[in-house]
Amino acid sequence: MSAQYSPADFQPLTFHDAVPAFKDGTDNPRKYLERCLETIETREPVVRAWVEMNIPASRSAADASTKRYQAGRELSTIDGMPVGIKDMLMTKDMRTRMGSPLFEGNYTKQDSACVQALRSAGAIVLGKTVTTELGMSHPGPTTNPFDPLRTPGGSSSGSAAVVGARMVPAAIGTQVVGSVIRPASFCANYAIKPTLGALNRGERLGFSQSHIGIHAGDLHDMWQVSIEVAKRSGGDPGFPGLYGGTVLHAAARPARLIVMEAEGAPELDEATKGAFDSLLSDLHRAGVEIIGRTDHPLVEAFEQAISESLAISRDICAYEMRWSLENLLEQFGGGLSESLRSRLDIARKMTLDDYRLVLSKRDAARAAHHAISNIADAIISPSSVGPAPTLNNKGVDSGVIHTTGLPNYNAVTSVLGAPTITMPLLAIHELPVGVQVIGQQHTDDGLAGIARWISQTIHERPV
Amino acid sequence: MSAQYSPADFQPLTFHDAVPAFKDGTDNPRKYLERCLETIETREPVVRAWVEMNIPASRSAADASTKRYQAGRELSTIDGMPVGIKDMLMTKDMRTRMGSPLFEGNYTKQDSACVQALRSAGAIVLGKTVTTELGMSHPGPTTNPFDPLRTPGGSSSGSAAVVGARMVPAAIGTQVVGSVIRPASFCANYAIKPTLGALNRGERLGFSQSHIGIHAGDLHDMWQVSIEVAKRSGGDPGFPGLYGGTVLHAAARPARLIVMEAEGAPELDEATKGAFDSLLSDLHRAGVEIIGRTDHPLVEAFEQAISESLAISRDICAYEMRWSLENLLEQFGGGLSESLRSRLDIARKMTLDDYRLVLSKRDAARAAHHAISNIADAIISPSSVGPAPTLNNKGVDSGVIHTTGLPNYNAVTSVLGAPTITMPLLAIHELPVGVQVIGQQHTDDGLAGIARWISQTIHERPV
Repeated sequence: MSAQYSPADFQPLTFHDAVPAFKDGTDNPRKYLERCLETIETREPVVRAWVEMNIPASRSAADASTKRYQAGRELSTIDGMPVGIKDMLMTKDMRTRMGSPLFEGNYTKQDSACVQALRSAGAIVLGKTVTTELGMSHPGPTTNPFDPLRTPGGSSSGSAAVVGARMVPAAIGTQVVGSVIRPASFCANYAIKPTLGALNRGERLGFSQSHIGIHAGDLHDMWQVSIEVAKRSGGDPGFPGLYGGTVLHAAARPARLIVMEAEGAPELDEATKGAFDSLLSDLHRAGVEIIGRTDHPLVEAFEQAISESLAISRDICAYEMRWSLENLLEQFGGGLSESLRSRLDIARKMTLDDYRLVLSKRDAARAAHHAISNIADAIISPSSVGPAPTLNNKGVDSGVIHTTGLPNYNAVTSVLGAPTITMPLLAIHELPVGVQVIGQQHTDDGLAGIARWISQTIHERPV
Repeated sequence: MSAQYSPADFQPLTFHDAVPAFKDGTDNPRKYLERCLETIETREPVVRAWVEMNIPASRSAADASTKRYQAGRELSTIDGMPVGIKDMLMTKDMRTRMGSPLFEGNYTKQDSACVQALRSAGAIVLGKTVTTELGMSHPGPTTNPFDPLRTPGGSSSGSAAVVGARMVPAAIGTQVVGSVIRPASFCANYAIKPTLGALNRGERLGFSQSHIGIHAGDLHDMWQVSIEVAKRSGGDPGFPGLYGGTVLHAAARPARLIVMEAEGAPELDEATKGAFDSLLSDLHRAGVEIIGRTDHPLVEAFEQAISESLAISRDICAYEMRWSLENLLEQFGGGLSESLRSRLDIARKMTLDDYRLVLSKRDAARAAHHAISNIADAIISPSSVGPAPTLNNKGVDSGVIHTTGLPNYNAVTSVLGAPTITMPLLAIHELPVGVQVIGQQHTDDGLAGIARWISQTIHERPV
C-alpha cells in the first residue's frame, strides 16, 4: 500500500481519455464508476478519505450518463465523471459535517452552488471527503495515499487523498490559507486554486479569502471540471467568475519566471530545495529565464510585501470567523478543538481597527503583486516546504497549531487572491512534492497553459 | 389609529434622551420596555409588524440592563434599547422564517453577527419583524402605521413599521434594492443604508449588493445603533466596516447638493414633487447651492450611468439567488410566490457573460459616482416616488411585480454601494415621505452630519 512515489512512474486516474470509449460504446460511465468503487474498496480502509458516500444514487447517475453517451447527448465534457466533495460544501443527499462533532446531524438538504453545477453537467457526486475541523487545522482520520504514517495535508485532506489514491479522477476542495495546494502537493495531485471569487462558494462566504479549488489526476480533468462548474454557477456574488476556454489552454512556454521565496524558503527542506533547483535548471535549459528577488527591485518589494502572509491570513480568518465560533460555543458550550480555540482567542483580542490594519497589509501585498505583472509570465515555487510530515506532527506557526503540514508557500496565494496551479513534479524520499505556478488575478487560463508546458517539459512527455 | 402624519407634530419614539433618567434612577430600561410593550399591545393588532417576540427574555435583559445603569456599568450607549430584528437575520432564541412558508421550522439557534453585537452592547432583542418573501417582493401581513389600508413598504416592512408605530426606538433592516430606505420613507423613519459592507451581514452574504440598515426614530439613535454594532462585529468579510465617531456627527451645512433624478423623476407624483421642490428652495435660502443634471457634464454622465439601476439590480440579484432558489424548488417542489418565480425565470435565461456584463455596468455606475466626488457634498432626492401606495397595489417594473411600492429612488444607492440616509421631512396627503441624502462610499459619518443639518433646518428646531 505504501507506494514509492516516482513522478515518471505514477499513473494517475484520469477521465478525459476515457470519454472516447464512452462515445464508441467500448466503455461507459457505469463501468468507470465500478472501477472507482473497486479501488475505493481496496484503498479506503487505510486511506480513510471519505466521510460518506451515496453509492446507489451514484450508480443511478452513472447509468443515466451511460444512456446519454449512447444517445450522443452528453451534458458536458465531464458527464459521467465521479467526483468527491469536500465536507465543507453541501450535498442535498448527504450530511455536511465539516469535520466537527458539532455538525454530526447537519443534513442541509441543499447543494452548494458548485455541487449543483456538477450535477447539471452530468458529473456523479459520489461522496463527501474528509476535511479538518471547520476547514482549519485540527485533522481528520485521513492518511497519505503514499504512506499511511503521513498526513495527506489539509484542510482538503480527503479530496487530495481520493485523487492521489486513484479512487476518483477529481475532487472539490476549498482554500482559505493553504487547504488545496498543500494537500495536493502531498498527494501528487494536479490542482488549481483559482483567482479569488472565480468559482461560486454558495453560502460559504464567511471568509474574504476563501476559494473553491479543483483536485485532479491531470491538467485536462482539472481544467474541465473548473470551466464546466464556472459556466453553470459562475463566481462568488459580485465576481466575474473563471475566465477561460472550453478546453485546457495549449502548452505555453513562459519567457520568464520569478522564483518566489515567500515564507517558504526558510523552512524548505534540503532535499526539496535541491530537487526544485534542479527543476529550475531544466527549465532554464529549455529556454526560460529565471528571475529571483535580487534580480529586480520590484521583485524584492513583492517579497517584502508578502513576507507576513501567514500572519495576515491568521488574523483575517480569526476575525472573520469570530462571530460564528462564538455562536457555536454558546450553542454547544464546547466541542471546539484546542487549535480552533486558539484562533478564537486571537479574534477576541482584535478590534475593528486591528482588522482594518491587516486588510490594508493584504491590499499592499496585492498591489506589490500587481506591480510585477509585466516582469515575468508567472511566479514559480515549491507547493510545500517538503513532503508530507508524519501524522500528528505538530508544527506551530504564529500561535496556531498545524498538524497537516506547514502552509508556508500557500498563505501567500490566498492573501493575493492569485490563481495557483500545482503540479506533482518532484519526488523527495519517494514521496510527492508539488511545484506551483502563480499568475495575476484572472489569468487562470493562460497559467494552465504554462503549467502544461512545464509539466511536459519536466516529464519529457506530452501532457 | 389612522394618523394624519405631519412632520412637525409627529413625535417619534427615541431612546438616547431617556438615558439620563436611567442614570439618575428616575426611569429604567425595564420601564422603558414596558412602555414599548403597551404601545405594541395597542398598535400591533392592526399594524401586524412582528413575526414573533421573546417577551420573557426581553424583560430579563431589561432588568439586567437596569442593574447595570444602577451600578454605573452600562455596556454601551444603547444598553437597554429594545430593538426589532428583520426576520431575514438570525436570533438564537427565535425562528428565522424569512417571510416564506418553506422556513416555518427554521430554528437556527444562532445569532447573526449584528444581533450578537447588539446583545453584547446590552440592547434588548425584543423580536423578529415581518419581511417580504426572502426579502424580495411578495408582501407579508404588515400595514402602514399611518394608514392601515396602505403598505409599510418592503422588504423591511416590519422594521419600518415598528419604528413608525412608536413600538420600539430602532430596528434592523436589510437592503438589496430598496428594502430599507423605501419602507423608512413610507413609515416616517430616519434610516441609514450604510456604505456597502459597512455592517457585518454574518452568513447572509449571497447578494453582492446587500446591506444591513438601521431604522430609528431620530438620527441620534440611528447613529448609536450603527456605530455600536460596527464596533463589535465590524463589516462584511474583507470590508473595513463603518467609519465614524462614537456619537452623531455635528450638524454640517453642505455648500452644494446635487439633485438626483435617477429613475425616480418620471414616476414622482405631483404633490411629492411640489413638496420636494419647496424643500430645495428652503435649503437654497439657507445658503446651499443646488445643482442639477443640466448644470454640470459630470452630473449628466452620472445620471446616464445610473439610469438602468433597477434593471441592473434585478439581473444581479436574480443571477446571484438562482442556485438557492433552485435548491428550494428541488427540496420543496413549490412554495415560491409568482414574484419569486419570475426572478428565477430571469436567472435561468442568464449566462455567466450576461452576469459579467451587468457587473460591468454596475462598475461603470460606481465610477461615474466617484467622478462627482468633488462637485458637491452629497446628493439629495426624495426617498420614494410618493407616499405609501395601497395594500396589494401591483406595480410592475422590468418584469418584476412589486406590491410594496416602487424602488425607483432606491436601486441606485444599492447599485452604488453608497451610504444613504433618509429623513421623514415631507407630508403628502397627510402621509410621510422621506428625503434622502447620498454620499460617497465610507462618508457615512459626515453624511449623518449633513442629514442632521438638513433636518434641523427644515424642521426649524434642533435635531
